[in-house]
Amino acid sequence: MNEIRHRVGIKARIEDIYEATYKPQKLQSWWATSASGSDSVGSLIKLMFPGYLDHEWEIVELAENERVHLRLHSGPDPWLGSELRFEFLATTDQVFVTLTHITVAETPAEAYQYFCTKWPTFLVSLKQYLESGQGMPFPNDIKIQH
Amino acid sequence: MNEIRHRVGIKARIEDIYEATYKPQKLQSWWATSASGSDSVGSLIKLMFPGYLDHEWEIVELAENERVHLRLHSGPDPWLGSELRFEFLATTDQVFVTLTHITVAETPAEAYQYFCTKWPTFLVSLKQYLESGQGMPFPNDIKIQH
Repeated sequence: MNEIRHRVGIKARIEDIYEATYKPQKLQSWWATSASGSDSVGSLIKLMFPGYLDHEWEIVELAENERVHLRLHSGPDPWLGSELRFEFLATTDQVFVTLTHITVAETPAEAYQYFCTKWPTFLVSLKQYLESGQGMPFPNDIKIQH
Repeated sequence: MNEIRHRVGIKARIEDIYEATYKPQKLQSWWATSASGSDSVGSLIKLMFPGYLDHEWEIVELAENERVHLRLHSGPDPWLGSELRFEFLATTDQVFVTLTHITVAETPAEAYQYFCTKWPTFLVSLKQYLESGQGMPFPNDIKIQH
């Protein structure tokens, strides 16, 4: 297993940040073009990226305002075996969001470098969505390659 | 040692990308507010980030259109012990730039996560500078925290 870790600091209510990482109608404000599904533990969230395969994530754990744990149920190849852990830490002036993306050992180096570079663009989108109301979900995401 | 690896794909001439990673007048177009120094092996490049300590990088190796290797000479705390390796690979439709940032073993987890999240914003700035002529050097960089 490889772990990719990123961190952003967001000025927003921790409840709003927490919900933005697992509620479908919020995921489509900063990550996917559209999202559907239920938002309880054990249910599936479907994320759609037109032109690419959908991702389906199982909600493994919801620790209110502390942690969200997702596991890929189905999705495109480099994502197979992926788990995501969002963790939230409130400080006096911002809430730190740490994202750990666990990939399987066989993840090719190219996919690994892609995740390492692409995730920050979506975390910046999450930050902008929560601070300004306007995120950059796919296909309006920041591009890192052609 | 820890290695952070990122990759972006840029549509530009490989010569221009190569030069943008070690020539002071180009580094100030996508990374630092201003930069000075010489651009030959063994010389020092000084990068200025007003409000923060300057960074001084020694040019360790220049392999034309292939690789640029920099070693921190002096700079702020989390950067101490850092080396940077930019590598360039031309494909039919873009040039891939891989950045390896080697940090020392004692790098605190927070600094490591900061680098992992912040570097992509500067690599996107490098990409935009080379593709559009307009980068996002400090203090116009994409912010990841407060």
